[in-house]
Amino acid sequence: MLMKPLDALGNVLGNQILVRLKNGMEMRGKLKAFDIHLNIVLEDAEFTDGDVERKFKTLFLRGDMILFVS
Amino acid sequence: MLMKPLDALGNVLGNQILVRLKNGMEMRGKLKAFDIHLNIVLEDAEFTDGDVERKFKTLFLRGDMILFVS
Amino acid sequence: MLMKPLDALGNVLGNQILVRLKNGMEMRGKLKAFDIHLNIVLEDAEFTDGDVERKFKTLFLRGDMILFVS
Amino acid sequence: MLMKPLDALGNVLGNQILVRLKNGMEMRGKLKAFDIHLNIVLEDAEFTDGDVERKFKTLFLRGDMILFVS
Amino acid sequence: MLMKPLDALGNVLGNQILVRLKNGMEMRGKLKAFDIHLNIVLEDAEFTDGDVERKFKTLFLRGDMILFVS
Amino acid sequence: MLMKPLDALGNVLGNQILVRLKNGMEMRGKLKAFDIHLNIVLEDAEFTDGDVERKFKTLFLRGDMILFVS
Amino acid sequence: MLMKPLDALGNVLGNQILVRLKNGMEMRGKLKAFDIHLNIVLEDAEFTDGDVERKFKTLFLRGDMILFVS
Repeated sequence: MLMKPLDALGNVLGNQILVRLKNGMEMRGKLKAFDIHLNIVLEDAEFTDGDVERKFKTLFLRGDMILFVS
Repeated sequence: MLMKPLDALGNVLGNQILVRLKNGMEMRGKLKAFDIHLNIVLEDAEFTDGDVERKFKTLFLRGDMILFVS
Repeated sequence: MLMKPLDALGNVLGNQILVRLKNGMEMRGKLKAFDIHLNIVLEDAEFTDGDVERKFKTLFLRGDMILFVS
Repeated sequence: MLMKPLDALGNVLGNQILVRLKNGMEMRGKLKAFDIHLNIVLEDAEFTDGDVERKFKTLFLRGDMILFVS
Repeated sequence: MLMKPLDALGNVLGNQILVRLKNGMEMRGKLKAFDIHLNIVLEDAEFTDGDVERKFKTLFLRGDMILFVS
Repeated sequence: MLMKPLDALGNVLGNQILVRLKNGMEMRGKLKAFDIHLNIVLEDAEFTDGDVERKFKTLFLRGDMILFVS
Repeated sequence: MLMKPLDALGNVLGNQILVRLKNGMEMRGKLKAFDIHLNIVLEDAEFTDGDVERKFKTLFLRGDMILFVS
């Protein structure tokens, strides 16, 4: 019954997730790793940067810029 | 008699809550989990993002962006 | 004689207080709980949000957004 | 000879002080209490809020918003 | 199977990486060192600064300004 | 030979210093005390506040607003 | 082979360095001291402040404002 918030991330390890940053950017990719600081590694990450669609095989995201993950 | 602020969140675990973020966004959903950093997991989360109504089955919210919870 | 700042909050537990946030918002309500992070629970909280008067039976306020309490 | 900065506040406990906040506001009042986070309690606090002169019998100020004290 | 986010940086030590800062700047260089604060040392670092292309043999980057690394 | 940055402040205890704040303000005064948070006490502090020249016998400056000291 | 980022600063102790701040300012001087917070002491520091060229014999820089060092 009792769940901690980070368990919700553990449940989607290896799955496709959406990460919304505090600056409004949103990134999609497969969740490869995370830690208690909410640092996240995405595989096959994609996001829109201004008008440009960018893709990265592996993306390390600093946790303090994250607003939400789904 | 004595209550700690986080107890107020414990009391509404499983209930529908409203979360107001520091950037003015407000999200609604069922409170599934929280921790001392105020990281929160919402189930069936809904919020307005600009003009768009968005819904997420599970939403992990980083605690440092939260202004209030009710 | 010696008093710590948080004692001033302890003295008004159960009383009507005013909370001013760093973004200029001001909330009124009965102080139900607080902790060392200045997280606060207000009962029958009221505040003006743009043009709208809002009321909440119970409001959990994150402490790092608080400017002053009176 | 050796003095720590917080001693300077201890020396004016009970005296009238001026507190300048990071947002430019300045508050005056009698220093009733402070802690290592620079949280401060003022008695008979006064400040200008836009065009309005406001007074509070007791004011708890969160330390992280303080720029200087004199 | 289990990986921590910082392992992803360890895997590219000595490789060419891209670092995106919170202010939008992006720097490229060879990853020479990093620590748990995400402080990073780049070798043969290059970035665009306004209209100017700048190059540094060795660049120490403070970790709290980093948004992502790839 | 080895010196720690705070030693540089210890060396000018009692001397006239210049403190530049992150908001651009600059204050001058005699350095009376400092701590590891860079909290500083100035004696006979002077600074320009908009168009006004202000002077304080004793000024306690919160360290997290300091940009540099010379 | 293994190097920690701060070692890169240790390697240039006594040398001329460039410090870029988060607000865009850049300072040059001889690195006299640094600590784990990235607090830095520069000797014969020079920087452009608006239109003014400023020089300081000794400059103590608070580490949390630093973007990079080279």
